[in-house]
Amino acid sequence: MKNVAVIGAGSWGTALAMVLADNDYTVRLWAHKEVQIKEINEAHTNEKYLPGVTLPTNVIGYSSLSETLNGISTMILAVPTKAIREVLGKIRETQTEPITIVHVSKGIEPETFKRVSEVIKEEMPLHLLKDVVVLSGPSHAEEVSRRQPTTVTVACENMQAAEEIQDMFINGNLRVYTNPDVVGVEIGGALKNIIALAAGITDGLGYGDNAKAALITRGLAEIARLGVAMGANSLTFAGLTGIGDLIVTCTSVHSRNWRAGNLLGKGHSLDEVLENMGMVVEGVRTTKAAYQLAKKMNVSMPITNALYDVLFNNKDPKEAVDSLMARGKTHEIEDLASILAKE
Amino acid sequence: MKNVAVIGAGSWGTALAMVLADNDYTVRLWAHKEVQIKEINEAHTNEKYLPGVTLPTNVIGYSSLSETLNGISTMILAVPTKAIREVLGKIRETQTEPITIVHVSKGIEPETFKRVSEVIKEEMPLHLLKDVVVLSGPSHAEEVSRRQPTTVTVACENMQAAEEIQDMFINGNLRVYTNPDVVGVEIGGALKNIIALAAGITDGLGYGDNAKAALITRGLAEIARLGVAMGANSLTFAGLTGIGDLIVTCTSVHSRNWRAGNLLGKGHSLDEVLENMGMVVEGVRTTKAAYQLAKKMNVSMPITNALYDVLFNNKDPKEAVDSLMARGKTHEIEDLASILAKE
Repeated sequence: MKNVAVIGAGSWGTALAMVLADNDYTVRLWAHKEVQIKEINEAHTNEKYLPGVTLPTNVIGYSSLSETLNGISTMILAVPTKAIREVLGKIRETQTEPITIVHVSKGIEPETFKRVSEVIKEEMPLHLLKDVVVLSGPSHAEEVSRRQPTTVTVACENMQAAEEIQDMFINGNLRVYTNPDVVGVEIGGALKNIIALAAGITDGLGYGDNAKAALITRGLAEIARLGVAMGANSLTFAGLTGIGDLIVTCTSVHSRNWRAGNLLGKGHSLDEVLENMGMVVEGVRTTKAAYQLAKKMNVSMPITNALYDVLFNNKDPKEAVDSLMARGKTHEIEDLASILAKE
Repeated sequence: MKNVAVIGAGSWGTALAMVLADNDYTVRLWAHKEVQIKEINEAHTNEKYLPGVTLPTNVIGYSSLSETLNGISTMILAVPTKAIREVLGKIRETQTEPITIVHVSKGIEPETFKRVSEVIKEEMPLHLLKDVVVLSGPSHAEEVSRRQPTTVTVACENMQAAEEIQDMFINGNLRVYTNPDVVGVEIGGALKNIIALAAGITDGLGYGDNAKAALITRGLAEIARLGVAMGANSLTFAGLTGIGDLIVTCTSVHSRNWRAGNLLGKGHSLDEVLENMGMVVEGVRTTKAAYQLAKKMNVSMPITNALYDVLFNNKDPKEAVDSLMARGKTHEIEDLASILAKE
């Protein structure tokens, strides 16, 4: 069996380790905590992140990064976005051979506005990096771990590398598409959280399916507009990492961003919500980054702007949604065509 | 106050009559049954179709088509798709002045493959017809009747007519977009029911959000492919009557098509399902029409084909979904670009 490494044993890293194990790889799963490694190797579970799921025995927990990566040519990077620089800094210290990095993280770095693959390329010297691939799509980790039908996209400028990763992951439960548009895949994955927050707000306000469908549709248009301005292919937003991921995130009550928005819509303050959630709400950071980016690039993002006002300027959520409804009369095709016009 | 006519007092016709009444029109609402007209005029309710909702007093029930349309320049046609030829036949007998028809029906006529606006143009002689406008979008009637935020699109080749209808309906609760692409708006509205049936099947099989998001995303791609082959603008499918309406129909348990699919997924036969529902399941008819159309026009529609086999060739639903997952390795952009290639 071939060896592969997964760095990060949260729910998504663990679920992907299971897919690779199902595909006959010996999977080295690196985790931060000794107790979690012990659980993986002895009980073959990871209860905190995937309750009730049994891991294949060819998923093996590792605590040392250098041991995990020893002799490995492909690693899946599944740590939180803000931990990437630190983890790669450690890997860099002992790594001697070039490696392909498949990242599965979402977000845009605040201040620098860098996408995850750009951060990776900054942190890993050229001689240690073969290719950077992004894997993304509409995929709750829990469903993947239960082997339910799922589709994802792998994107890389080097299509041969994308196809190698496609071959690694594809099986009867997981259908894998390739796409050369790294920018579009990363932007779609990051910005969907803005719309999920907004969808949570409309649900929290007691508005119905009509309002949410409108929000998702118009939200996709403004995400695509920013993405294309940043160099993405507009078609990517019509695919799995665009509309597909957006649907899953906006219609699932499991989505952290939706839940945070829901509390905001019900009248709680941002501070209360963040305290109540007790974890990072990625969409809050992303809203700020997208708001600033859109200003800088002169791209129209009315939903993002309205959400920014709710989050950071104490605007009443109901007023914000109602003012979106009250915008002038719009010609739908001309408006959507403005996405393509930037290409 | 200006007069306007709404032909058909089902849930959608009645909800739209309420919007026009809110916008200060005197609305003549034609219904088939005397008892319903009496209820509308005396109790100001339409309990069978919009339970618990009070109608404005400027919605007035009418029983005679010729009286309803006397002196009227715009009528909203809100009867079931298969009743359109018959109703227009009756209107034709007494109508003397040209009229603008705003239709809100969805479907493709079996055998002829005609869209609703084409059927209308066949039934109404040129001298009686000013413009045909279609109004469509993600809009549960019940939510519109409760004045919850909703967006719709009005499409007409004559954009001046579309803008006049936009002005009639737009208000603080209903945001109205215009679009010159009648073909795209009609095809999106009709074909979404195919994907809603399929989404019901995957839910009935116990598959999760990942499978459904994939189905909606890939479903939109094949609807767009057929639509563009028929002359639609691909951008329309990224809008409210494309992805917007598809999301509402596929994620709401209120959707009749979703419910029928759900029963199929749970192992019931088509005959059992249709008997159990006791009403028309539009998606069944539409699947047959789209299947035949796609063959005729040589357009790839894998989900429609799989559903056709389930509905009409006794194919096992689980096998059908699993075979969709097992299709060869796909390049996402090339696949989506095939939509545009037909333009």
